[in-house]
Amino acid sequence: MKNIGVLGGGQLARMMAQAGRPLGLDFMFLCPDQNACAASLGKHLNAPYDDPVAHKELTEWADVVTYEFENVPLQVVESLEQQVALHPSSSALAVARDRLSEKNCFRSLDIPTAEFAPVNTLEELTAVMKGMGLPAILKTRTQGYDGKGQAVLKKETDLPEAWEQLGKRPCIVESKVAFQREVSVIAVRDQKGETFFYPITENHHREGILRLSINRLNDPVQDQANATIRKILEDFNYVGVLALELFQVEDQLFANEFAPRVHNTGHWTIEGAQTSQFENHLRAVCGLPLGSSQSENPAAMVNLISRLPDENQIRAVPGATPHFYGKAEKPKRKVGHITLTGDDCTMEEFDKRLAALLQMAGESQLAGQKFLDTALKPQFP
Amino acid sequence: MKNIGVLGGGQLARMMAQAGRPLGLDFMFLCPDQNACAASLGKHLNAPYDDPVAHKELTEWADVVTYEFENVPLQVVESLEQQVALHPSSSALAVARDRLSEKNCFRSLDIPTAEFAPVNTLEELTAVMKGMGLPAILKTRTQGYDGKGQAVLKKETDLPEAWEQLGKRPCIVESKVAFQREVSVIAVRDQKGETFFYPITENHHREGILRLSINRLNDPVQDQANATIRKILEDFNYVGVLALELFQVEDQLFANEFAPRVHNTGHWTIEGAQTSQFENHLRAVCGLPLGSSQSENPAAMVNLISRLPDENQIRAVPGATPHFYGKAEKPKRKVGHITLTGDDCTMEEFDKRLAALLQMAGESQLAGQKFLDTALKPQFP
Repeated sequence: MKNIGVLGGGQLARMMAQAGRPLGLDFMFLCPDQNACAASLGKHLNAPYDDPVAHKELTEWADVVTYEFENVPLQVVESLEQQVALHPSSSALAVARDRLSEKNCFRSLDIPTAEFAPVNTLEELTAVMKGMGLPAILKTRTQGYDGKGQAVLKKETDLPEAWEQLGKRPCIVESKVAFQREVSVIAVRDQKGETFFYPITENHHREGILRLSINRLNDPVQDQANATIRKILEDFNYVGVLALELFQVEDQLFANEFAPRVHNTGHWTIEGAQTSQFENHLRAVCGLPLGSSQSENPAAMVNLISRLPDENQIRAVPGATPHFYGKAEKPKRKVGHITLTGDDCTMEEFDKRLAALLQMAGESQLAGQKFLDTALKPQFP
Repeated sequence: MKNIGVLGGGQLARMMAQAGRPLGLDFMFLCPDQNACAASLGKHLNAPYDDPVAHKELTEWADVVTYEFENVPLQVVESLEQQVALHPSSSALAVARDRLSEKNCFRSLDIPTAEFAPVNTLEELTAVMKGMGLPAILKTRTQGYDGKGQAVLKKETDLPEAWEQLGKRPCIVESKVAFQREVSVIAVRDQKGETFFYPITENHHREGILRLSINRLNDPVQDQANATIRKILEDFNYVGVLALELFQVEDQLFANEFAPRVHNTGHWTIEGAQTSQFENHLRAVCGLPLGSSQSENPAAMVNLISRLPDENQIRAVPGATPHFYGKAEKPKRKVGHITLTGDDCTMEEFDKRLAALLQMAGESQLAGQKFLDTALKPQFP
């Protein structure tokens, strides 16, 4: 195993290659975007995902194929899977890319979720809402990410507009959960079934886009999250990194969605865990022994959206490491992130450094928040 | 800066490439060894160091050239330096590869060393020893490493044999220092003169080969070591990573030798420091901003000489990361190393884990040693 084919060439593919190249792995990215930011780390097949010539080149070259995100056409993954080793399998992808299948999967595994129902017409939506009650969220079944393909339903008159806005496509409507916080758990499972879990992170979004993930260590709901994601991993005989987003209500976790790939809420693992999610994903898909997912210190990840702060200003904060993705700045685009690790400091100092980084990232509101004062009393060392 | 040419293709070049490829850098190695273990991480020019065809290919392709060790021919470095950006400069290399120039350099910078004298004939050696007294060490001026090119002089009758053994070449003879321990300091300096120092390590050799380096943090002689290496860095207007080996006698450090390159006693920085020596060396030679050299936890590096233990056995020790160089096993050959970081444990536990790793590495004598009981009372957190 030496040649890794990746569907997609964005920052997730890039960080995968950054983790894999030191292991002696080489990369080829099939990505229709000519500015694919992973391109400098391997060979870029600049073609549509379903291009047969690109498929030929990819499958002849690659020892194993993986993908960086779930919005790649399912048929492409199913077809490639017939020709070359491919992980995670198309069966996991098929479920993850369809919100209805995903919720049905949770239900079949006895994993709690918000109340949900499929809706295919405005009439169905109107009928379903009578039973479910407001507020709720209407989501397209496929192609949703970063808050796209979603509309909040607050009052009955919102329904027709939301239906129009999402393009009258097959949707799922979910009861809006009054959660205390959102967390995610990331796990990796290898071809023999060995499984490692990363510390869960608490996640903060703004405008539907992840802005901040914090790993506080020893989170009181870690075991519950591990047990939940383990069910999914085993159900699919899964190989690779899997991320699961959850809502916490009191002491109970409700599954929101899973992603069969490396995940934005796990970027802190590059510096903050013994083995990063990217390296372990590659180890799993290549059949190499997994590295430890342990993390001994709190860590946080601040997303850089739209624009990049000064690199030296970031480096001046102890424990901060900038990651710039080599993408042009553009409103709402993820152009980089910062990892903060708290190896040497008190929790007060960690919070102060995090606030400084959030300010640089333009997240003044989050910077002013006292994360440690939440009712959940997170366990800091 | 994207294309990095490296003279040498051994494990130092390999780890440099492992650090550089995630940054988007590509590598070409000029190395006469057809089994160069760095070859899988770039293009391998399998040719003698002075091959003009290889030089043409290297200088046309590379944006900057560096070297992995100081036994590359000086003329080659001087010639390449005329054609392409090259760091560290040939002036630093010229001094480092000749033990006499090196000692004279220390002397000119008011850096304490053992007593020394150049000797070019057996008669000179005999005459010099009358003044210097035994025990002493005879060393060839060039081409010495891992204990090669050295002979210990214990009694007067050792002189002729030692002289024969080293090939009657220009030598330097040094008074043998009764030191308490050997330490090394590694620093990196960029093109603007910004300088970062890594925590010093205490080093343990056997049969002239480094077996173990320990970074205990807050070492009482850190400041003295930093001030010493800073003199050398500034004297050469140095760019890149520099390593300095020192003997400690009571509270005083005596310079032994320096290496204008990444160094075996700094391999722990891959896991143990915010930015590894390999990444910072590349950052310096490419003109990128340096990363922090800070280290928040004790760390150790166990060399794997001659043979490799089982990878999973190493990974079972918390905080241990195996590095296998992809070289065939062979007596006295460096085939890998293990880093141990002590993020989560007491010093007793750290010592226990280190002892287990030393056992795996076949260093049973070092495994039995109580490093923390030394008279120096190192400062553990």
